[in-house]
Amino acid sequence: MAENFVESITNMEDDFAQWYTDIVKKAELVDYTGIKGCMVIRPAGYAIWENIQKELDRRFKETGVENCYLPMFIPESLLNKEKDHVEGFAPEVAWVTQGGGETLPERMCVRPTSETLFCDFYSHIVHSYRDLPKVYNQWCSVVRWEKTTRPFLRSMEFLWQEGHTIHATAEEAQERTELMLNVYADFCEQVLAIPMVRGRKTDKEKFAGAEATYTIEALMHDGKALQSGTSHNFGDGFAKAFGIQYTDKENKLVYAHQTSWGMTTRLIGAIIMVHGDNSGLVLPPLVAPTQAVIIPIQQKKEGILDAAYALRDKLSKVARVKVDDSDKTPGFKFAEQEMRGIPVRVEIGPKDLANNQAVLVRRDTREKSSVSLDEIDTKLAELLTTIQKDMYERALAHREAHTYVATNAEEMKEIADNKPGFIKAMWCGDRACEDAIKEQIGVTSRCMPFKQETLADTCVCCGKKAKTMVYWGKAY
Amino acid sequence: MAENFVESITNMEDDFAQWYTDIVKKAELVDYTGIKGCMVIRPAGYAIWENIQKELDRRFKETGVENCYLPMFIPESLLNKEKDHVEGFAPEVAWVTQGGGETLPERMCVRPTSETLFCDFYSHIVHSYRDLPKVYNQWCSVVRWEKTTRPFLRSMEFLWQEGHTIHATAEEAQERTELMLNVYADFCEQVLAIPMVRGRKTDKEKFAGAEATYTIEALMHDGKALQSGTSHNFGDGFAKAFGIQYTDKENKLVYAHQTSWGMTTRLIGAIIMVHGDNSGLVLPPLVAPTQAVIIPIQQKKEGILDAAYALRDKLSKVARVKVDDSDKTPGFKFAEQEMRGIPVRVEIGPKDLANNQAVLVRRDTREKSSVSLDEIDTKLAELLTTIQKDMYERALAHREAHTYVATNAEEMKEIADNKPGFIKAMWCGDRACEDAIKEQIGVTSRCMPFKQETLADTCVCCGKKAKTMVYWGKAY
Repeated sequence: MAENFVESITNMEDDFAQWYTDIVKKAELVDYTGIKGCMVIRPAGYAIWENIQKELDRRFKETGVENCYLPMFIPESLLNKEKDHVEGFAPEVAWVTQGGGETLPERMCVRPTSETLFCDFYSHIVHSYRDLPKVYNQWCSVVRWEKTTRPFLRSMEFLWQEGHTIHATAEEAQERTELMLNVYADFCEQVLAIPMVRGRKTDKEKFAGAEATYTIEALMHDGKALQSGTSHNFGDGFAKAFGIQYTDKENKLVYAHQTSWGMTTRLIGAIIMVHGDNSGLVLPPLVAPTQAVIIPIQQKKEGILDAAYALRDKLSKVARVKVDDSDKTPGFKFAEQEMRGIPVRVEIGPKDLANNQAVLVRRDTREKSSVSLDEIDTKLAELLTTIQKDMYERALAHREAHTYVATNAEEMKEIADNKPGFIKAMWCGDRACEDAIKEQIGVTSRCMPFKQETLADTCVCCGKKAKTMVYWGKAY
Repeated sequence: MAENFVESITNMEDDFAQWYTDIVKKAELVDYTGIKGCMVIRPAGYAIWENIQKELDRRFKETGVENCYLPMFIPESLLNKEKDHVEGFAPEVAWVTQGGGETLPERMCVRPTSETLFCDFYSHIVHSYRDLPKVYNQWCSVVRWEKTTRPFLRSMEFLWQEGHTIHATAEEAQERTELMLNVYADFCEQVLAIPMVRGRKTDKEKFAGAEATYTIEALMHDGKALQSGTSHNFGDGFAKAFGIQYTDKENKLVYAHQTSWGMTTRLIGAIIMVHGDNSGLVLPPLVAPTQAVIIPIQQKKEGILDAAYALRDKLSKVARVKVDDSDKTPGFKFAEQEMRGIPVRVEIGPKDLANNQAVLVRRDTREKSSVSLDEIDTKLAELLTTIQKDMYERALAHREAHTYVATNAEEMKEIADNKPGFIKAMWCGDRACEDAIKEQIGVTSRCMPFKQETLADTCVCCGKKAKTMVYWGKAY
């Protein structure tokens, strides 16, 4: 039975996509539904999202963010107000056309994102420089009509947060845009143990209606890139479209400046694809709903279960701990703990108890250590810290080992065809070269990183003078 | 300016509905939108909801509840599976008929509640007695096409939690139904300071598809009742409609038993209408986003602002505290604190500072006390506890003073016409009497309370033998 549980996962080396699908099902993160592209996020998956929410929300609030809630519907006329924005989103929305038994005079879409609603709201409440800034965020779900969907990575409905801020000056808006990108990147690195490349999107890849889009990009185990969070500076474009003006200190009527920024349940997909292995999920301790599971060995022997419960009470002071006292075999429980990615397994049986010890087993490396019950709480806390750090470092080493440099198109093509990963290459800044690289080499620009390097003087595509170093890759 | 801020609220004695509307606008709890029946919940309102969520969620989890997330769309064929349920909800749903630029082969409604989705989900994951119980909940928004809407009380879209559980036996389902009703009532009484009548709905008033609905009912300041939370026992009705069977310990295939229970942002309406006064909102300390606001007097004088910040740091250890250091006048700040319902105002000026003291002013009674800065932290903590307790007791006294007994139809009519409040009266159990009381006397059955009394031997309406004491009233 224990073996069956494990055997049914595809090896990631054989079929990465199937391995991913197997994990989301077998670790009970999601269930499929009869609604195309919509999934149930099961408790094991949702508890990860709750930990993400809690920690992100805390970090947001430290920077002055306040939460609010706006309607889920957008009347068509409101969506149409900003030209670039509607062109970007209108093709992929769901329309409500009937309500309360009647056909609506104007159809409403289910929000794909809420810039237009926030603009409408801000136009009501922003009148004077005294009303600025507003630094608001909402946690909600949004709907985008995707053709191809995959749990967490791309689904018709997904959960996210969307921050929308409005400021007196362009400088303040730019500062907030970058601040939130750094909040995102720090969170991913410190909590999810996923290293991020921080940078700016090219004009081609920026958000519909934005002046500039910033992004954090992560490398998955299969060498593909995952855009993990974005932060947009709108300048005063939306303010002009929605007539959001305020009276400044000199009593002049001027337009406000806006930003928006979002992260989604896609992060759970990133955790799976960066840390998972062929036995299942591997969760970074800081985001794991259960950080250690105690598995009693020969649990029917007298005193074993009591010892396991006593151990849980002791360890609960330093970590999120559970006892698996079900009637399954220890072997099945081990396989299940591995599948679910619980960072540490604590084994305690008659021999251990006789020696006043228990065995700690790391999920990430499978390393075992016998630890005295007298100091097991501090040892567990230390081990969780070590696992968190090691997971980040392994992910960073993997990214570094799969980041390549190309100085001409041939090199770039050779890498793109044979070495999955990031390609760093210089770019002249022309859309034509970006398009050519996509068509002929099969990679897209991921970002122009904040940390620039001069790899060559000329554009990797056209050979003209280079302006910027760009990360390229195949993306989810 | 301070006066203007306050004067623009209607007195509740003059026009209770307008008073309510004034408060939700002036306390910045909501903003209206261009979407019929949909509102923006502004940060001051949403922060109350966040505190409700946090505390309710903690109480849920203590009883073993796990959170999850299900799609917001329900295909029409799924909604149609349980006959009573679809009859109850189909007339008031919003239909999505187009997506991604195409007309859908089957229309989908935006969830008005998620019984059908949970049933579909449970039919996938419940196979054996080992899979039971599942005690799941989700926090989300739902849509019901209401004709008349009012912020928080009745809106087209609202935020709520919906718990959906599935059990092996009818007894377990009944136990969970009552358990959650008591969790709700305890929460409302202990945290929101609102006394609740706990009881069962009559068959006429029960939820579409339920075997039994339990409710908690509160009395508002104007003598109207507000249904504040409901908990439903479905028996095996939904399980039969959706084919949810499991193999029991005797290896027989049997139907499972289900419950659902929900509370909504309507609770914010209850807080307003139970505790508010003619100066604005009055928030119970346990749910107040800011529990005390420090208002410096003559704040431009040297040392005053520094003293206010030092006081905030000291008080932040015992409460959620802010300093209002804006350039408004103290009078304006006082009025604003009252409007927003912040439980305690802390005034500190040059004279106070010279005497090593500050003034604490209660929002609920306006009582003032001078307190030494040396012990102000413990005094504030005590005061918040006292306010919380007093607010509950005042609300209870109000309810008791507005709960009447009627033993015949004339008495009942006399009370209903002249004395807003609850009417306790005996009922024979016949639907005909319930209908007649509604039509002729203008009150509906609120609940059959758990705490039964024998007020008379005969039904208040028909004079036949009485079965049950019922709370009647006019309801929101």
